[in-house]
Amino acid sequence: MEQNQRIILVERPQGMPDERHLKLESAPIPTPGEGQVLLKTIYLSLDPYMRGRMSAARSYAKPVEIGEVMEGGTVSQVVASRHPDWKEGDIVLARSGWQLYALSDGEGLRRLDPDLAPISTALGVLGMPGFTAYVGLLELGQPKEGETVVVSAASGAVGSVVGQIAKLKGCRVVGIAGADDKCDYVVDELGFDAAVNYRDEDFESKLRAACPDGIDIYFENVGGKVLNAVIGLLNDFSRIPVCGLIAHYNDTALPPGPDQLPRLMRAVLTHRVMIRGFIQFDFAPRFPDFLRDMGEWVRTGKVKYREDIVEGLENAVSAFQGLLTGRNRGKLLVRVSPDPTRS
Amino acid sequence: MEQNQRIILVERPQGMPDERHLKLESAPIPTPGEGQVLLKTIYLSLDPYMRGRMSAARSYAKPVEIGEVMEGGTVSQVVASRHPDWKEGDIVLARSGWQLYALSDGEGLRRLDPDLAPISTALGVLGMPGFTAYVGLLELGQPKEGETVVVSAASGAVGSVVGQIAKLKGCRVVGIAGADDKCDYVVDELGFDAAVNYRDEDFESKLRAACPDGIDIYFENVGGKVLNAVIGLLNDFSRIPVCGLIAHYNDTALPPGPDQLPRLMRAVLTHRVMIRGFIQFDFAPRFPDFLRDMGEWVRTGKVKYREDIVEGLENAVSAFQGLLTGRNRGKLLVRVSPDPTRS
Repeated sequence: MEQNQRIILVERPQGMPDERHLKLESAPIPTPGEGQVLLKTIYLSLDPYMRGRMSAARSYAKPVEIGEVMEGGTVSQVVASRHPDWKEGDIVLARSGWQLYALSDGEGLRRLDPDLAPISTALGVLGMPGFTAYVGLLELGQPKEGETVVVSAASGAVGSVVGQIAKLKGCRVVGIAGADDKCDYVVDELGFDAAVNYRDEDFESKLRAACPDGIDIYFENVGGKVLNAVIGLLNDFSRIPVCGLIAHYNDTALPPGPDQLPRLMRAVLTHRVMIRGFIQFDFAPRFPDFLRDMGEWVRTGKVKYREDIVEGLENAVSAFQGLLTGRNRGKLLVRVSPDPTRS
Repeated sequence: MEQNQRIILVERPQGMPDERHLKLESAPIPTPGEGQVLLKTIYLSLDPYMRGRMSAARSYAKPVEIGEVMEGGTVSQVVASRHPDWKEGDIVLARSGWQLYALSDGEGLRRLDPDLAPISTALGVLGMPGFTAYVGLLELGQPKEGETVVVSAASGAVGSVVGQIAKLKGCRVVGIAGADDKCDYVVDELGFDAAVNYRDEDFESKLRAACPDGIDIYFENVGGKVLNAVIGLLNDFSRIPVCGLIAHYNDTALPPGPDQLPRLMRAVLTHRVMIRGFIQFDFAPRFPDFLRDMGEWVRTGKVKYREDIVEGLENAVSAFQGLLTGRNRGKLLVRVSPDPTRS
């Protein structure tokens, strides 16, 4: 008899999470009660923010508890319904987490139309990562024509969209990534003006050469040495929307010195820099605008996207490790069960 | 025959400036040409930003050149005029720098009325430092009733005004200063709710105790250990206007580790913090509003101020050293020549 498959947080990781912390187990498939639907996961989204949910530290969302299924956004299909609004076969955006089957009372579900866009895009370019790029760049970055925009994790789900929107707004766009093929991709396929590999020995001088007029917007996804290199290039009134710090998510202590904080603060003071952390859900009222604009940009080919799809829930942990070290190419998804909309 | 006295930047300081870098010399008194006035300095303002002008580093204003008179704001009297708008005896706000006599073509002069307020206040509470406090707190800090505002260098020319305006806006105000009598002053005389001495061994726990609801606005004047202590107390959507970094002005290298920058960035991300450097002159259009509001607050005793007046230009360098180490009590001024409006 078919069973549910699910990945449980059994121990909080220090450093890189692995199978000791995230355990795959079988369980009975739950039965929907009155007002509930049973969802079967097609795609599970893997995103850097999940590392934060594995830790007990104070953050913008409460951590996953020990013994609970790991959280995560999914594209799922309704396979049984005792809810008046949902019927068997519906494809929905859900938050079923790292598991094959999940119950829902309908709260927070959004119906997807497979004829409008591939259903997987609801987890990427037309979903949370795309929206993060959209509000972070447009609301906080406020790009103006001719400005220089630098984006870290440039080939990732967020960074790739940031750069393409910045191009649409008439900016010079410089991507930073950790592999030469990622750099080639954002220039050749996505139309960035330049890209620099942060693993290069002369990364700082290459970044400087790629930004002859300095930096007006730095879209921060990573922290670490990339941020350190950016500090010296910031222009007057530049802006740094802070969306992620993936270089630090597995830190177990503060890095050794020198202390770079006074250097950043001096740049902030003398150049009147604005730094602002944000979480996309703080901008929820802008979501309809996003769907309209991004839907149009994707349809007309102005914004391109790439997906990196891993087969099977049993490969989710190793895929997530790869996400934290930059192994993926494009938006990382786990295909937990076959996609009925793709032949 | 009377001579001009002036202090020249003869060498760029590394670390604390002293008489090797700033040299007092005599020179002939200049003679005004057509369209010029001769000004005699009454008060010279000493301000932390001047340390930046002594260095060659890229900043928001060009450095003072070697061999030039040190820059600075002054309250001066017109002692000879060949300019139609100014007459002998006029008291003006000027930028004569660190010297007794200076020529001016009238550009940037502002006439002061000794009957409205003591003329020295044009360099303090009713001048640049007061305006810095006003725009930094109100425009960037956006204080709301009931919020907690922490201000560093709390007894200084800027910090003391920040705290008092925040009280007028209904905030809980916590001052940070480097001496117990400064802490007493801001609580007992200025009405702050609490104050903490950053030189105390248990500074961090005292600051935490003084901010039971966390920090909504941190007005940054100093950097260093004060900023490090603030990071752990920042609330969601808190704001950090950055006005100065006096703890670092004499740094000759980055401080040793650990690297505190990732800690700050993590707080920025998870709490959606806004950090923004600013220079008061970027907000020049707000100056008339400031003069109206602050004039009223000072007249009605809602905002109090204190001045630390040092006698004689020959004591300016040592007084400036004291400013960088916190020796002054209140707005630091040098009385370069007698104040004709005070008996």
